[in-house]
Amino acid sequence: MPEPRLAGPVEVVGAGLLGTSIGLACRRAGIEVLLTDTTAENVRTASGLGAGRPRTPEDRPALVVVAVPPDHLGAVIAAALDATEGTDAVVTDVGSVKGVPLAAVAGHPGVARYVGSHPMAGSERSGPLAGSASLFDGRPWAITPHAGSDPAAVETVEALVRLAGGVPVWLTPDEHDRAVARTSHVPHLLSALVAGRLASGPENHLALSGQGVRDVTRVAAGDPRLYGQIVSANADAVVALLDEVRAELDRVRDAVGRGDRSALEQVLERGVAGTRVIPAKHGGPARPMASVWVSVPDHPGELARLLADAVASEVNIEDIRIDHDPGRPVGLVELLVEEARADHLVASLESRGWTAHR
Amino acid sequence: MPEPRLAGPVEVVGAGLLGTSIGLACRRAGIEVLLTDTTAENVRTASGLGAGRPRTPEDRPALVVVAVPPDHLGAVIAAALDATEGTDAVVTDVGSVKGVPLAAVAGHPGVARYVGSHPMAGSERSGPLAGSASLFDGRPWAITPHAGSDPAAVETVEALVRLAGGVPVWLTPDEHDRAVARTSHVPHLLSALVAGRLASGPENHLALSGQGVRDVTRVAAGDPRLYGQIVSANADAVVALLDEVRAELDRVRDAVGRGDRSALEQVLERGVAGTRVIPAKHGGPARPMASVWVSVPDHPGELARLLADAVASEVNIEDIRIDHDPGRPVGLVELLVEEARADHLVASLESRGWTAHR
Repeated sequence: MPEPRLAGPVEVVGAGLLGTSIGLACRRAGIEVLLTDTTAENVRTASGLGAGRPRTPEDRPALVVVAVPPDHLGAVIAAALDATEGTDAVVTDVGSVKGVPLAAVAGHPGVARYVGSHPMAGSERSGPLAGSASLFDGRPWAITPHAGSDPAAVETVEALVRLAGGVPVWLTPDEHDRAVARTSHVPHLLSALVAGRLASGPENHLALSGQGVRDVTRVAAGDPRLYGQIVSANADAVVALLDEVRAELDRVRDAVGRGDRSALEQVLERGVAGTRVIPAKHGGPARPMASVWVSVPDHPGELARLLADAVASEVNIEDIRIDHDPGRPVGLVELLVEEARADHLVASLESRGWTAHR
Repeated sequence: MPEPRLAGPVEVVGAGLLGTSIGLACRRAGIEVLLTDTTAENVRTASGLGAGRPRTPEDRPALVVVAVPPDHLGAVIAAALDATEGTDAVVTDVGSVKGVPLAAVAGHPGVARYVGSHPMAGSERSGPLAGSASLFDGRPWAITPHAGSDPAAVETVEALVRLAGGVPVWLTPDEHDRAVARTSHVPHLLSALVAGRLASGPENHLALSGQGVRDVTRVAAGDPRLYGQIVSANADAVVALLDEVRAELDRVRDAVGRGDRSALEQVLERGVAGTRVIPAKHGGPARPMASVWVSVPDHPGELARLLADAVASEVNIEDIRIDHDPGRPVGLVELLVEEARADHLVASLESRGWTAHR
């Protein structure tokens, strides 16, 4: 099956770091980009950088990318659906949380045209001037269809991700939020705790700061208001993990206090194990991959249900190709996974009632 | 005053990452290096890399650098003092903690020839093969004289630091240990806690790992046995800071749980402040510096007392030059500090009974 292609124009709502970078990546590919921002200065700056032109009322975007702070995601996604009512324009967002904005637009007219997404490419810098067409190169970019997402809309979002150089990672909105609590939000909070201790120490102690503490605290330089919004929008998953961290912190503190070397080493060994499970960066040596084919009834909700079941199988889906020929009642979905996990995925999907084969 | 020069031979005890790197840096400068290790294989590997030659019983080192794991520092420093008894050979170590090894050799014959030190240049890798002559280039390297350290021995250690490309940071042993608890040991433990949460999460969640979590967890890949020794040898300072971290963690957890955005932002803002107080990397734009001159009675203990008082003034000492002409009862010590802090240092030292001027 051919790669999905992206047609323009693409409207970017919110010309900050991510919005400007998406505009630059689309322009690099020759696609028309329309820019909107509540701050006119951001549109001027992003336009000046070549990220697109200001949107006019006559413009008819084929894809709207909502790139606003988490507090405003739901309202701006709803407004984008309303503004494109009666068209088949796709709406996505690039917010750091996916459950809260989805809940805000559940049942909204046209919600089938909405598919959430989230590029794992930020920066401790912000604003359009920090934008770059290559910000997403080789970075994971979550695509999080909901139960009512139109498969064609999912493909359009995948086309955006690939055009920008990102690596698609398919997850359900809820799984996404639990994943980023672990891989992003809690690491950010702990980084801030380490950095906070630096500010309260004697100045001359800091002369001993080496590369280690610089690495651990780098993300803590991010905008507190933005990260306050992100973490607040993912409170349940974050609190659950912070409780785990606190229990482990108590174990470390007691082990060091009591001189229990063995208990201390156990915590450090769990840390080493954690550094080893972080996947190699995309762009590293290729691992052998295999395709798993699944027959999917061609109506809304089935793709999301398949995705949820694939996710529940704990197999990392590297690529999804959807054959959604409208003339057939059953479509075929190709899931690309690590070869070593393909048999497990087939068995897991069949146990959940799907027809699947390698 | 001229820079102190280092005469060889230099004996390196422990041909691991640090010892091999020091050997390579000394060889680069044309200084003879003698290698010792309880594991003969390490000596062969380090020799093969050009870090020096195996020590023979006839060798007479001018400087012994002890580069063994923390648990063994005290015993190996004492053995080095014994082996060089009757000579003026200087003994230093490059261990991550300074109080415990000093306590182990307090009162030991020849302890005036011992001056502790600690380069802030490690790696999550270890062993001689990870060694590099440039490991210390531009890195802070703590020099921690004790109350009985011979000023000439302090100069010899400074000469080693400069030869290896390190940037000397003078601290008392106790201050050093409190400083590294804050800038190294607690960051390492928190990094391990973040990494530990990764190992317990669903595998497909980890596909969302971005650069942030890689940075936060990089140091957690370090050898658990080595870091267990380091942290255990600095238990009091580490536990005191972990208690602070725990109180702050409780504040974050409660703020997220209650949806108290303001309290959450306060913690994040303290984190931002912390990232801003980390000094710019050495090698960055030069800041204006000033010399403060202090008259120092030329007998053991006075230099350490001056250093302790300078440290208590919370001024970062960028360089110390000692004029210890044995023909005079009073020597002159030059302290190089940031210009903006020089007046404060003079006033602070004079209030403590020293004669000081700019």
